[in-house]
Amino acid sequence: MTTFSPIRWRDDALWLLDQTLLPDEETWLECRDPETVAAAIRRLSVRGAPAIGVAAAYGLVLGVRDAPDDGELERRFAATRALLASTRPTAVNLTWALARGAEVFASTRGTEPAARIAALLAWAHEVHARDIETNRRLAAHGADLFGQGESGGGERVLTHCNAGALATAGIGTAVGVVTAAHARGRVETVWVDETRPLLQGARLTSWELEREGVPFRLVTDSSVGALMARGLVDRVVVGADRIAANGDTANKIGTYVVAVLAARHGVPFYVAAPRSTIDPDTPTGSEIPIEERAEDEITHLGQNLVAPSGTRALNFAFDVTPHELIAGIITETGVLEPPFTASIARALAAD
Amino acid sequence: MTTFSPIRWRDDALWLLDQTLLPDEETWLECRDPETVAAAIRRLSVRGAPAIGVAAAYGLVLGVRDAPDDGELERRFAATRALLASTRPTAVNLTWALARGAEVFASTRGTEPAARIAALLAWAHEVHARDIETNRRLAAHGADLFGQGESGGGERVLTHCNAGALATAGIGTAVGVVTAAHARGRVETVWVDETRPLLQGARLTSWELEREGVPFRLVTDSSVGALMARGLVDRVVVGADRIAANGDTANKIGTYVVAVLAARHGVPFYVAAPRSTIDPDTPTGSEIPIEERAEDEITHLGQNLVAPSGTRALNFAFDVTPHELIAGIITETGVLEPPFTASIARALAAD
Repeated sequence: MTTFSPIRWRDDALWLLDQTLLPDEETWLECRDPETVAAAIRRLSVRGAPAIGVAAAYGLVLGVRDAPDDGELERRFAATRALLASTRPTAVNLTWALARGAEVFASTRGTEPAARIAALLAWAHEVHARDIETNRRLAAHGADLFGQGESGGGERVLTHCNAGALATAGIGTAVGVVTAAHARGRVETVWVDETRPLLQGARLTSWELEREGVPFRLVTDSSVGALMARGLVDRVVVGADRIAANGDTANKIGTYVVAVLAARHGVPFYVAAPRSTIDPDTPTGSEIPIEERAEDEITHLGQNLVAPSGTRALNFAFDVTPHELIAGIITETGVLEPPFTASIARALAAD
Repeated sequence: MTTFSPIRWRDDALWLLDQTLLPDEETWLECRDPETVAAAIRRLSVRGAPAIGVAAAYGLVLGVRDAPDDGELERRFAATRALLASTRPTAVNLTWALARGAEVFASTRGTEPAARIAALLAWAHEVHARDIETNRRLAAHGADLFGQGESGGGERVLTHCNAGALATAGIGTAVGVVTAAHARGRVETVWVDETRPLLQGARLTSWELEREGVPFRLVTDSSVGALMARGLVDRVVVGADRIAANGDTANKIGTYVVAVLAARHGVPFYVAAPRSTIDPDTPTGSEIPIEERAEDEITHLGQNLVAPSGTRALNFAFDVTPHELIAGIITETGVLEPPFTASIARALAAD
């Protein structure tokens, strides 16, 4: 597998591969201040819960590094944290990274400003590196689940949205599992849901699978019923934006639909996510805040209006899959199994 | 309600409102030969099972009307029927109209060619007029199902694809039901699934509901799970392209997905279709031929490629909803209820 990351730290700046332009253009956004990072998160130039977490860690550094004294350093840290926290509500990795960054920052109090900034940057590099390593281990655990499939040439696996290298700092979560299983000869083909409205499946997952040489077919999100009714899907693997303490999982809108169809057709449904995506402070899915995005993401395709002028839309970015529809949660320390309240508590206690 | 029809016979020609250009442009296609009608059906300029049936009836007339003698008349009728039959495989109204036309044509044998052509045109006008009347009666039966809803302001009803005036010669089937119920104060709002890949919901159903003054909100197809989980849907009404003798129903891809979610959330799921959509010669849904359309309908949005160049897609145009997920089939003679094998047999026997 290619080691590819949409997030780079180079020349004292954060560089983000602008995912809104893929697959047409590979353009890198240079971020030298936290406002640019926040704007990139908001408009989904960087997206995917783990990638948002890594970008936010570097964003904290960019917000404080020019502070002339310790008072200003503290003030800028708080403002930067608030700015980044306000960007998107659902992905808990963002909250997680900002809270960890605050702990690190607090622990350096009493040292010189330059030393505090250096410590924060070292921590951001560690978050970045750890995400890469987490992806690698998670993918290996997930690949262990795959069998030879009916044909002997591997399984036919369906994924929704993009939980790949572009959504993380490393090889991805759900797509990382798929590419690792493919490397072992255990994937015959991947069904890629296009994932309306922003087509992360068509634009991003397809682009990644093509780079990795994994065979795939693109389908509309509505095709999941026909595919499963025809027996063409052996397994589902998706990512997650937040997992509640009981295993309920928020992920891209439509994931719940796939899970319900999978249950009806006896297809095992797996979530792949680092432990940092699990939020012990969210007891169940009902408490996960769900982002509602702009209506024109649905009423327009690019610049073109596709519905009558003045049409109102409703654009939830995520839905919640209840834990009883999930066969397992693939993490960097192994696959958590039901009952999730217990397996999640054990996994987090091991941290 | 406006009486609007996308199909007109005027100046000895068939005129079809080109639905591929809506809602941007209202352009009428003039059809003076069956090849133009067949091409319009294939590229979905005219679409929807009942509308295809009416267009095919006029197409038969266009194919034979210039025949110089009776031998040529017979030859052209057979060729035109075969041409029109080859256009799309799933909608049974097409097969139904061509078979009825052949009966009418056969019954005129022994009379002058001019009289035979006139009889065929009179029959096509009758098919057209009967579809308008069928829609009206069907809509009234469907509207009887609606209650005041939780708010007292009517129900929140979801529909998929376009089974409206544009899909028929009259006020539509599913959308006809909705507009009739709205006229009685029984519809608070309509959830319009955008219906990928060709966006018949966004482009056509939205356009119709706006004309009729029915409040609606556009959503992605994947939103059905989130809407139902939040208790925002009171009823589903969809159209049909073919209904098997046991009630299994082929309709636009994604309909089965909606039905499965509706069953999980206890939302009643209704099919609205004229009796001509029921095919007694198709015992169950497994025997319904499902059209597979061009891959570029998914890989492209308009002229723009949205996936990496060379991406393969799979594009089933329809899926099959099994009868056990259907609460009732709304027809012009009343609402058929389970068990459908019996209620369908009774309804067809009454023909």
